[in-house]
Amino acid sequence: MTLSEYSREELSEFLNEQRKLLGEYKSRGMKLDMSRGKPSPEQLDLSNEMLTHCLDGDHISESGIDCRNYGVLDGIYEAKRLFMKMIGVGRWEIIIGGNSSLQMMYDVLAKAMLLGVKGSEKPWCRCEKVKWLCPAPGYDRHFAICEAFGIEMITVPMLCDGPDMDMVERLVSSDPDIKGIWCVPRYANPTGVVYSDKVITRFANLKPAAKDFRIFWDDAYCVHSLDDEVPSILNILDECKHAGNPDMVIIFASTSKISFPGGGVAIIGASEDNINFMKAQMAYQTIGYDKLNQLRHAKFFKTYEGILEHMKKHREIIKPKFEAVLDALDKEVAPLGIAEWSRPRGGYFVSFNGIGGTAKRIVELCKDTGVTLTAAGATFPYGIDPEDRNIRIAPTYPSLEELKAAMEIFCVAVKVASAERMLGE
Amino acid sequence: MTLSEYSREELSEFLNEQRKLLGEYKSRGMKLDMSRGKPSPEQLDLSNEMLTHCLDGDHISESGIDCRNYGVLDGIYEAKRLFMKMIGVGRWEIIIGGNSSLQMMYDVLAKAMLLGVKGSEKPWCRCEKVKWLCPAPGYDRHFAICEAFGIEMITVPMLCDGPDMDMVERLVSSDPDIKGIWCVPRYANPTGVVYSDKVITRFANLKPAAKDFRIFWDDAYCVHSLDDEVPSILNILDECKHAGNPDMVIIFASTSKISFPGGGVAIIGASEDNINFMKAQMAYQTIGYDKLNQLRHAKFFKTYEGILEHMKKHREIIKPKFEAVLDALDKEVAPLGIAEWSRPRGGYFVSFNGIGGTAKRIVELCKDTGVTLTAAGATFPYGIDPEDRNIRIAPTYPSLEELKAAMEIFCVAVKVASAERMLGE
Repeated sequence: MTLSEYSREELSEFLNEQRKLLGEYKSRGMKLDMSRGKPSPEQLDLSNEMLTHCLDGDHISESGIDCRNYGVLDGIYEAKRLFMKMIGVGRWEIIIGGNSSLQMMYDVLAKAMLLGVKGSEKPWCRCEKVKWLCPAPGYDRHFAICEAFGIEMITVPMLCDGPDMDMVERLVSSDPDIKGIWCVPRYANPTGVVYSDKVITRFANLKPAAKDFRIFWDDAYCVHSLDDEVPSILNILDECKHAGNPDMVIIFASTSKISFPGGGVAIIGASEDNINFMKAQMAYQTIGYDKLNQLRHAKFFKTYEGILEHMKKHREIIKPKFEAVLDALDKEVAPLGIAEWSRPRGGYFVSFNGIGGTAKRIVELCKDTGVTLTAAGATFPYGIDPEDRNIRIAPTYPSLEELKAAMEIFCVAVKVASAERMLGE
Repeated sequence: MTLSEYSREELSEFLNEQRKLLGEYKSRGMKLDMSRGKPSPEQLDLSNEMLTHCLDGDHISESGIDCRNYGVLDGIYEAKRLFMKMIGVGRWEIIIGGNSSLQMMYDVLAKAMLLGVKGSEKPWCRCEKVKWLCPAPGYDRHFAICEAFGIEMITVPMLCDGPDMDMVERLVSSDPDIKGIWCVPRYANPTGVVYSDKVITRFANLKPAAKDFRIFWDDAYCVHSLDDEVPSILNILDECKHAGNPDMVIIFASTSKISFPGGGVAIIGASEDNINFMKAQMAYQTIGYDKLNQLRHAKFFKTYEGILEHMKKHREIIKPKFEAVLDALDKEVAPLGIAEWSRPRGGYFVSFNGIGGTAKRIVELCKDTGVTLTAAGATFPYGIDPEDRNIRIAPTYPSLEELKAAMEIFCVAVKVASAERMLGE
């Protein structure tokens, strides 16, 4: 029997029971932070060798560069070779950067605002208005960058195979103030959606009103599959080239969830012209990124296939955690018909949608009981989920036991919030 | 006899001899790059242990932070403690950043342009004009940042104890478009000047017309002494606080020339309010910098005194190189009265001033003969040395033997260019 079929009395009784349960959980004094998509210590251990014996007495790159000294703005070649295949670009279409792809996205956008991108008539800060398309639910830190720069965000609904492309095409072709869009094409944050070939083709064939429109293609989870195979999606840069839009896309990726978050390397991919343009801008900002860390990564992973093998070890650790989340929801929440959620094949999140007007309350109840979740609304521009439904569940950081305990609490919180809502409390 | 005392015939003969000499050097096919202030491989070897056994099995900070994972925007405490004393700030007045202090300067200025600094009425890019004071000769990459952002540079002469403070005070107090100034207070690049107490006090007591005026205090060579002691200059942040200008200065430093250029850590120091303001801006840009590298540095150097001990080893390597440069100039050029140069007690450069109109020619002659120097003019805003006199000599990277050979060539080039100039050729 779903909760909507309960009588008012049954619902009241149910609510009291669940509240009592939550009180019992609270008395256990649990403290668990599930707010961010962080790898667990076990996952980080997989790369520990990189911190010790990786550079023993050898800090010279294949081409003879002393990685301890200044130079090489766009990264050493063996690091480029390692990641070219991962993000699907060629040798002259890649920059190996610092420790954070988020920072590289911020920097590219900051430079676009101050200086413009290739083909800009003027820096974007000289435009009366700059707008950006934000598929939602999406990644809060993407939206935060727009907010920092005063860029007006337009929400685009996420469908099962990518953003609503009818809306994207209509807006991008008609409004020259729209300068870009955030995309996470594989295992989107938080929905887990993998963009379909059709969506990718439509992206590549956009006819933007703004001649300097850019797709920020954040391929953060390109190798983060929970299945045996990495999903082979269409190559966005190739498609853009075929469509005559070679400069329209900038690809971002990092090893934050491959090696070490904050201790990995970030990557930019784009057309050769775009890369050269960005390098020219970048030359004023830095002499170069940390080549020693690039060399560590090249030596540790050796090849793209080496990365894929490494990701299997991550998968072994995190797959049971995703299953635990889904098991709890399937068992405790599904029968009541009060929510739906994603069943991701990769990435770092389960996207949960309760009945309207319950998300904030669920997060609040969990917090009271000792489980910190990502703030409700965070997955929408300006932190406002218009229906107050979406919650991002991040299963990777806690241990399996902690996660199971946290999901028990989460499920009860969902029941309480739903019953409250249905009773009009 | 100085060259000006030569008769025209003597001068012609002298020129012919020196040209012949240069031709002989050329035939040796030397290839040497002295264009940048880079440490030599020997110097980098001093920190090699940091790359191997430093993090063996231990990546947890003193306060229990796993440095392999996300978090800690402003850096781990043991890294802060290490550098607080070096740049003279307190525990809440410091941020430990990424691999490049240049990048942090660029970023602070980019954010000032886009968002403003603490106390700004509006982002600087909304100001009709932004001007910046540039003591010159100075650091070309400082000037390049201004150029990138279209900031109008005003040259201020460098005197023997710092910038011309009469001019600085007059300009800063009268022109609200002037938003900042570049300073390298210890062993200025390239002059080697150490700012006097009087200059520092006058800086701290500036009464800027722009309420959001900032001193960019690039203490790049704070521990890079060629003497036994690090010069104890007045603490600029303390002085600014005493003068009621606590937020006027932002201090930058890095370990680029202590550990590894591009593989070190960068540091920002400022008032607590300033730091909090910058952290709030920075939170949109990144989740955090590379804490593993911060931990490497903290474990390797242990204390500020550890850094000073380490710098003595650098000094042992580079001091003979500075002496070789000065010896060559003293012996070959001084008697002719055609140039003057700095005798730095620290830093990375010897600043050479030929007779007017010879710098470009000297650099050209050296290049023809196989020795690449920093481009003439690079030490001035827009790359234009109005008198075409200044050349930055960077002695550290070549071996002592190479350096001596290069200085032979340099001295002959000086003689040729000077004689040409005096003959009106």
